[in-house]
Amino acid sequence: MSLSYSVPLSAQHSIPKQELMDRREKLFQKIGEGIGILWGAELPNTPTRFNQAPDLYYLCGLEDPNAILLVVGNTKEVIFFSKKATERDLRWNGPTAWTIPSIKTSHGIDQLRPYEDFWEVLAQKCGPETTIYLPLDPIDKIDKARDEVYHTEFQLLKHPIKNTPFWRKAVSTIREVFPLASLQNINPLLDELRQIKTPYEIEQLKMSGKIGIEGVEEAIKDTKPGLYEYELEAITSFHYTKMGARGAAFAPIVASGPMTYTIHYEANNRKLEKDDYVLMDYGCNYNYYTSDITRVWPVSGKFTMEEEKMYQCILDARNAIITSMKPGVSFGELRAIAYEVYKKNGYTDKKLSWDGYIGHFIGISVHDVGNPDDSCILKAGMVFNVEPVLDDPIKKRHMRLEDTVLITEQGAINLTEGVSAELPAIYKLMKQKGLTGN
Amino acid sequence: MSLSYSVPLSAQHSIPKQELMDRREKLFQKIGEGIGILWGAELPNTPTRFNQAPDLYYLCGLEDPNAILLVVGNTKEVIFFSKKATERDLRWNGPTAWTIPSIKTSHGIDQLRPYEDFWEVLAQKCGPETTIYLPLDPIDKIDKARDEVYHTEFQLLKHPIKNTPFWRKAVSTIREVFPLASLQNINPLLDELRQIKTPYEIEQLKMSGKIGIEGVEEAIKDTKPGLYEYELEAITSFHYTKMGARGAAFAPIVASGPMTYTIHYEANNRKLEKDDYVLMDYGCNYNYYTSDITRVWPVSGKFTMEEEKMYQCILDARNAIITSMKPGVSFGELRAIAYEVYKKNGYTDKKLSWDGYIGHFIGISVHDVGNPDDSCILKAGMVFNVEPVLDDPIKKRHMRLEDTVLITEQGAINLTEGVSAELPAIYKLMKQKGLTGN
Repeated sequence: MSLSYSVPLSAQHSIPKQELMDRREKLFQKIGEGIGILWGAELPNTPTRFNQAPDLYYLCGLEDPNAILLVVGNTKEVIFFSKKATERDLRWNGPTAWTIPSIKTSHGIDQLRPYEDFWEVLAQKCGPETTIYLPLDPIDKIDKARDEVYHTEFQLLKHPIKNTPFWRKAVSTIREVFPLASLQNINPLLDELRQIKTPYEIEQLKMSGKIGIEGVEEAIKDTKPGLYEYELEAITSFHYTKMGARGAAFAPIVASGPMTYTIHYEANNRKLEKDDYVLMDYGCNYNYYTSDITRVWPVSGKFTMEEEKMYQCILDARNAIITSMKPGVSFGELRAIAYEVYKKNGYTDKKLSWDGYIGHFIGISVHDVGNPDDSCILKAGMVFNVEPVLDDPIKKRHMRLEDTVLITEQGAINLTEGVSAELPAIYKLMKQKGLTGN
Repeated sequence: MSLSYSVPLSAQHSIPKQELMDRREKLFQKIGEGIGILWGAELPNTPTRFNQAPDLYYLCGLEDPNAILLVVGNTKEVIFFSKKATERDLRWNGPTAWTIPSIKTSHGIDQLRPYEDFWEVLAQKCGPETTIYLPLDPIDKIDKARDEVYHTEFQLLKHPIKNTPFWRKAVSTIREVFPLASLQNINPLLDELRQIKTPYEIEQLKMSGKIGIEGVEEAIKDTKPGLYEYELEAITSFHYTKMGARGAAFAPIVASGPMTYTIHYEANNRKLEKDDYVLMDYGCNYNYYTSDITRVWPVSGKFTMEEEKMYQCILDARNAIITSMKPGVSFGELRAIAYEVYKKNGYTDKKLSWDGYIGHFIGISVHDVGNPDDSCILKAGMVFNVEPVLDDPIKKRHMRLEDTVLITEQGAINLTEGVSAELPAIYKLMKQKGLTGN
């Protein structure tokens, strides 16, 4: 690597233009005469590819870091602001929005402008009573939902140096520059769009789920005592990258033995013992659409009777939830169905199943927009990660299973089924030869 | 993945206590009666493991995000501040500094304190004429040197929302709270230490280099027309993770055909054609020590005569530089040696070799501290990445080779040699079977 002053970009054309136009048209319907503003992601602070901010990527499919998207309600104009690429930028980092021959033709974007023009353009488009829709919640990330970013920021309020996060600074600057404008939160409007997946999005999520479960299956096949957890990580990551995923959807969790009790364990540096079981929670980012899969399996090829009981219970809960998922069903009903399974198996303490937690929405972000509280009703086009959990606080054991489920008018489709999670199928898989010949 | 409000930590004990004590003792000698402050890294904004800020990790080996290290000159005390871990934090993210039974015994750190105590402790340790040494340059990252962070920040001065980077905010807050203190830059003091590697560090760099070159060799072996660039990335990344690296040292560059002319190309999504050559620039992070290797090879197994001439020229330059490296030699002399080779081969335009650029220092960071200008003299314990380059602006071709070289009293040792970069060795390697059987 040679000296660099910014971070390279990659794909610029992955979302079809009509898809982008349709998404923006739905947003225009929501903002009326108002103006919408969205902020791009900052450059990564780690050795990895750039990932655009989900909301901005959803609406324009462009990867310029620190970009700004303006959607003007009364003229239905779409204006994209980014750093003007110099000859040097292009030599070092490759294409940006500025190298696309016609951003109007390819992305349906009306104007491409440099940062310097932002205030002038915004002032031209704003009347004295304009409503400005902008993110009043934190900017989410592929692996961190807005509420997660929010809580992390609050944890820092005790830090001796109080620094303002970008999104807060942005709100206060807009407020300062347009003191008479009405500022509205754009997040709920976009969340409503993002929650119902389009056919294009469903195709991406199917592929992400397929590559995702195949990668986990490779790790299951290769498992044997004496390997390190990171060796299983290597096998799954290999499959993801080889199949064309942009990378991981989140930092891989490969936990064995006592490590399974740390929910977000990511050191992955313990050696597998023959009496352990492995918990892998991992997924890939395929064309900006994520998968997120958890499987649990015994290193020896056979669970103990006690482990098997716990496993069978979450498996039954998972199957019962998925079988019941269809448009019109509420998350409260699904939670009740899961409870019944836990109770039937003798797990009557609600804390052991995290008060009936059954998962999260998934899409461009792993923890995608939408809050599955009891009153939330399933609709066709929703994609939900079913994730029943059980704790054994005495033996410090934890198990969970996790699948991506698409809701259609005809019922639920499991996008991360692959080889079944049923025990005979898992045991059979473990007997197959893996990538490294184990 | 389930809901999370912060990011997990991994290894906490990798650097031996005596090594940490020795490093801090050298810093104490530099700051006299002053007080030193170092800031930990913020949480990653991408789906990857946390990496501590290099300077802070160098001195204390602890991975708590947003941590603060205080070194008190007149009492030689070392105080570590971090977020106090709650029961929930531990369940979700595992160990932190707060779970180490005795941080004094394991890390030689005198006190572990929560954020809330910071100003009080600092005020207790500060007299009216105290000199406070703190970072007056940006906080570097594993894949971004301070000057790279600096330039990226300046690029954002045209962005309509001006947000203060953490390190700048920290300087102004300290200045505000201690208006009479003399603020000094701690960066040059630490740079001087970090530039001469200890035997412990050399061991880590050797291992990082060994795993690094093995991974690249696997990609060379597996190359054939029709593969995608990301498939080669997958093979090398697999080797890195399988061998226990913490991850990539920087986003992998796997460029073929016209893509080789984009220096930091990272899309890696082009299909290899039989007449292409591949340029891979990649390295791993092993125990927080990085490797960084570039190799160039023909997809068909044989360069054209023109390509071979270009390759042989940078190979000769590389060999000439490495052979000449020993304590007492200046970078000006090395640059002159490289020039001679370029001229001999007919490349007389200095721009084609980037004005004689020959590489960068390497260590905890890929672009480690130290500026190899003409007057800079090699010393034993320095580790330098030799990286001669050549451009062909007409045919838009670019080649570079890159190796990690340790300077010892006896001369230079190439830590990323592996199979030689000589052409017959590369051609022979390409005939071997790779991981995926190509």
